[in-house]
Amino acid sequence: MTESFTLDPALERDSLLVGHSAAGQVRLHRDARWPWLLLIPERPGLRELHELDEAARTQLWSASAAISEALLRAGPAEGKLNVGVLGNRVAQLHLHHVLRWPGDPAWPDPVWGRPGATAYAKPEQIVAQWQAALGAVLG
Amino acid sequence: MTESFTLDPALERDSLLVGHSAAGQVRLHRDARWPWLLLIPERPGLRELHELDEAARTQLWSASAAISEALLRAGPAEGKLNVGVLGNRVAQLHLHHVLRWPGDPAWPDPVWGRPGATAYAKPEQIVAQWQAALGAVLG
Repeated sequence: MTESFTLDPALERDSLLVGHSAAGQVRLHRDARWPWLLLIPERPGLRELHELDEAARTQLWSASAAISEALLRAGPAEGKLNVGVLGNRVAQLHLHHVLRWPGDPAWPDPVWGRPGATAYAKPEQIVAQWQAALGAVLG
Repeated sequence: MTESFTLDPALERDSLLVGHSAAGQVRLHRDARWPWLLLIPERPGLRELHELDEAARTQLWSASAAISEALLRAGPAEGKLNVGVLGNRVAQLHLHHVLRWPGDPAWPDPVWGRPGATAYAKPEQIVAQWQAALGAVLG
């Protein structure tokens, strides 16, 4: 019997589906303070990056590169990316991509666990913008 | 003229050289609160993960996987890894690998920017232990 993939309920609640890439779901974090995209491989039980085999890893970092480029294009010239896996609160593997810039609401501290989240006024519009920006990745 | 690689002075100050892998320098963070290893590709001007080409990416994530496995072996059964690039304070690309566990000194918050760093009593001993644990990666 094959266990099927179920998105963690906290990820489901805190983010919106943008689309599916070859490497997994791309989701927009609901916190509007930073452009923040998650890439979530749809494999049950996955927790750590190094659990992916080389083929899956190549696929993941190729999609991640496209997401990264799209985020940097969307921001100021001095934009910087935070890209990584934490999983302290939600163990299911999810790769964060957060666009940062000097003077952003947490700079230079990390965004994770930072109180004061704000919501997008029209999240479905922002999702549509990311769908357009990530067209090739979402296939 | 080729620009040569120079390690950022803040990385030099805050970490100790463990050795050289095919993907770059492996360094131990001086903060003893968490087993914390950095992987730093030795290429001048590198800031973001996606700037690496596919061959360099494969090399990076292969070394990262070995570092990750060594960190998990060194910790409790419920260990979790934080693996990622931030670069808010130091733009030079450095990939963090931090071993976390429920109840650690920042759990479940991030470690970056967390005040209260403690120093290893005998850092050269810890470096030697990581050299042994990472033997194959350090070649």
